[in-house]
Amino acid sequence: MLKRFSDPDRLSRRRFLTATAATAATAGGVIAAPATADTLADVPPRGPGDDLGAYSPRSPYVQIARIPEAAPGQRNVDPSAAINSKSPLDKFVGTITPTDLHYERSHSGVPNLDPSKHRVLVHGMVKQPLVLTLEDLRAMPSISRIAFLECTGNGWENWKSAPDTVTVQNTHGLVSTHEWTGVPLSFLIDLVGVDRASTWMLAEGDDGAAVARSIPLTDEIIAEGILAYGQNGEPLRPAHGFPVRLFLPGFEGNLNIKWLRRLKFGDQPFMTRWETARYTQLRPDGKARQFQLKQDVNSVITAPSGMMRIKPGSNRITGLAWSGHGRITRVEVSADGGATWAVAALTGPVLPKAQARFQHDWVWDGRPTKIVSRSTDEQGNVQPDRASFIAQVGTNALFHYSAQQTWGIDEAGHVRNVLA
Amino acid sequence: MLKRFSDPDRLSRRRFLTATAATAATAGGVIAAPATADTLADVPPRGPGDDLGAYSPRSPYVQIARIPEAAPGQRNVDPSAAINSKSPLDKFVGTITPTDLHYERSHSGVPNLDPSKHRVLVHGMVKQPLVLTLEDLRAMPSISRIAFLECTGNGWENWKSAPDTVTVQNTHGLVSTHEWTGVPLSFLIDLVGVDRASTWMLAEGDDGAAVARSIPLTDEIIAEGILAYGQNGEPLRPAHGFPVRLFLPGFEGNLNIKWLRRLKFGDQPFMTRWETARYTQLRPDGKARQFQLKQDVNSVITAPSGMMRIKPGSNRITGLAWSGHGRITRVEVSADGGATWAVAALTGPVLPKAQARFQHDWVWDGRPTKIVSRSTDEQGNVQPDRASFIAQVGTNALFHYSAQQTWGIDEAGHVRNVLA
Repeated sequence: MLKRFSDPDRLSRRRFLTATAATAATAGGVIAAPATADTLADVPPRGPGDDLGAYSPRSPYVQIARIPEAAPGQRNVDPSAAINSKSPLDKFVGTITPTDLHYERSHSGVPNLDPSKHRVLVHGMVKQPLVLTLEDLRAMPSISRIAFLECTGNGWENWKSAPDTVTVQNTHGLVSTHEWTGVPLSFLIDLVGVDRASTWMLAEGDDGAAVARSIPLTDEIIAEGILAYGQNGEPLRPAHGFPVRLFLPGFEGNLNIKWLRRLKFGDQPFMTRWETARYTQLRPDGKARQFQLKQDVNSVITAPSGMMRIKPGSNRITGLAWSGHGRITRVEVSADGGATWAVAALTGPVLPKAQARFQHDWVWDGRPTKIVSRSTDEQGNVQPDRASFIAQVGTNALFHYSAQQTWGIDEAGHVRNVLA
Repeated sequence: MLKRFSDPDRLSRRRFLTATAATAATAGGVIAAPATADTLADVPPRGPGDDLGAYSPRSPYVQIARIPEAAPGQRNVDPSAAINSKSPLDKFVGTITPTDLHYERSHSGVPNLDPSKHRVLVHGMVKQPLVLTLEDLRAMPSISRIAFLECTGNGWENWKSAPDTVTVQNTHGLVSTHEWTGVPLSFLIDLVGVDRASTWMLAEGDDGAAVARSIPLTDEIIAEGILAYGQNGEPLRPAHGFPVRLFLPGFEGNLNIKWLRRLKFGDQPFMTRWETARYTQLRPDGKARQFQLKQDVNSVITAPSGMMRIKPGSNRITGLAWSGHGRITRVEVSADGGATWAVAALTGPVLPKAQARFQHDWVWDGRPTKIVSRSTDEQGNVQPDRASFIAQVGTNALFHYSAQQTWGIDEAGHVRNVLA
């Protein structure tokens, strides 16, 4: 006899079997009905289907679009400002972000660049300055890596104050995970013969705002940096940097320069206005911190989340966790506002600097409560609660908010954003 | 001093630096030009970009569509026949297949199913037969896994004979890799209380052809099977089984029943016509083999590949390798028709039962030759050459062709399919 059937209790069979025999009210989301016959009644008849095509479109029954912050027709090309189009985390499953739903972030719209005319200038403290075409880059050795990308402004809504009507797309929709493919930065460094005294690299974009950042040449960045031309198996999309962008796993989004047109090597930061003004962190003492570049350990419950409604009984809590410091090792979930915690299951691929999916089965007794998640990474970093985060960092700054996200649930099952 | 710069020779810096100083002719694909100034000349001017949107479209400069076998307007709804739309492997990078370019395969077109009306009947040798809604399935514990799916007919063009003008999309375009998300089959088995004497499971689709297959309840299938409702982070697309399909990592595509409407448990195979007639393997002795279900170790060079043209000098050979028996451990590449072999680099995530990307830098001397790849999996299976494969299996059968793929290169650099 094969020992091939697993333990029913571990898989909470009892709860689901109870649910199947019970009413929707006590069964929460689970309303499976006992079968009364060997055939299905009341299902649509079968018939010939649609033609196969050059692409596989989505089902007309699937509504999954992002919500751009700039309404159609409205433009925002002020380089000092920005427009976002956030990922609908509440509609995703697994860990990979659908390619056309990766969050978009731009200071001057989306350039439509001709790859045959695009060039990347590599110069500064190098033996052999080069002008690279996309063809050059694609002929070089390449690597692929599944990793998250996160805007450093992700989550700031809840730092100071936020309405209770925001969704998880509003609060955390500026993080996504893709497979990125391109040329290792270390290869390019060797190719042009970067001077060993060089400690910084300027990366400049070909967008109208000419976003440019100074990047420290740390071991981590040299070992993991990629000049990326591919995402999820295909060429970059224009909103994500076509034909080539910089990808630095774990580092704030704006360093991952899109539409890359120049890399200059030097021995000190280049002090662009993006790092002297915009992307600095105002501290409680009024002084500004520069070059805070790493995205910290983070997590959020994506369901149930803002503006959803749940029923009493069996409910599944699920969400995403990520850290710029490496692999997620543990996610805990509290269903009583942080008084007690349970370890959630990690249900998918758990890769370094990639989003991990967590899940925890929970029976809601119908009384008002708060749910919250807390993640830990392989370096032992633990996601702080909001009060501890503010006590340490204050509320003057705009970026790198990574405190725990709390969702309140009222007696009617309405889920709302809570600043706690 | 940081020891942070890697060994130039390991990254073949010398070859590329030579290339940058040389002509395109001697540099092959690498034509990087030395920079003569600190600014870029002859590049288009910067300007405001397009609006951000609800989706991120592809660049108009990217042509990546599949080639459906049935031309627009032509229909093929004969259940005994089939239509394909193959993945353009030559246009991909990395290991993940773009969601809308996963290969399509159907016996009666693509059903457009309403998820609110769809049901899955689970019955047979079970304690508690159930009728499941999609809401039920989404409320159950879920797992996510990155794995390949392959049509058992993939590659058959080259088994008997094939024109020298086919591309890698024609020869190997019926395999793709996605992240699949859904309910573990083991959970459902426990939920309905499958009789421990049950050894087979019938899976039936809701398509017009009513494709149905008997699946043996092996430890591997129970441990790894998924009732999948998600692919690459989003709901399944109609062509891939929306709203729910069976996913059995490593097993031939037609077992992974799309548009799943029924699972019936029994103690013997159900002998549908799909397994008594269509998906059987005619042996050299004229007898037919049933239930050959596992996809064997395989690989193909995707570039340079059929109908491409290369230049003498530095060229990069890249391709994909996969095995239904587990993880790819080694890919070798020969540039002299199999006389000598070099170990290729595996450049991306290498996951069990997922496609792995390999890469090998090669300098072509301009003389006619043949290039071929050979993969090995963690169980020690080695991909056979075509002659050995045919000597063992003959040429009567149609499915599970997994022999090495050879591409010929003539003195002009034209790459052509070769039956060798």
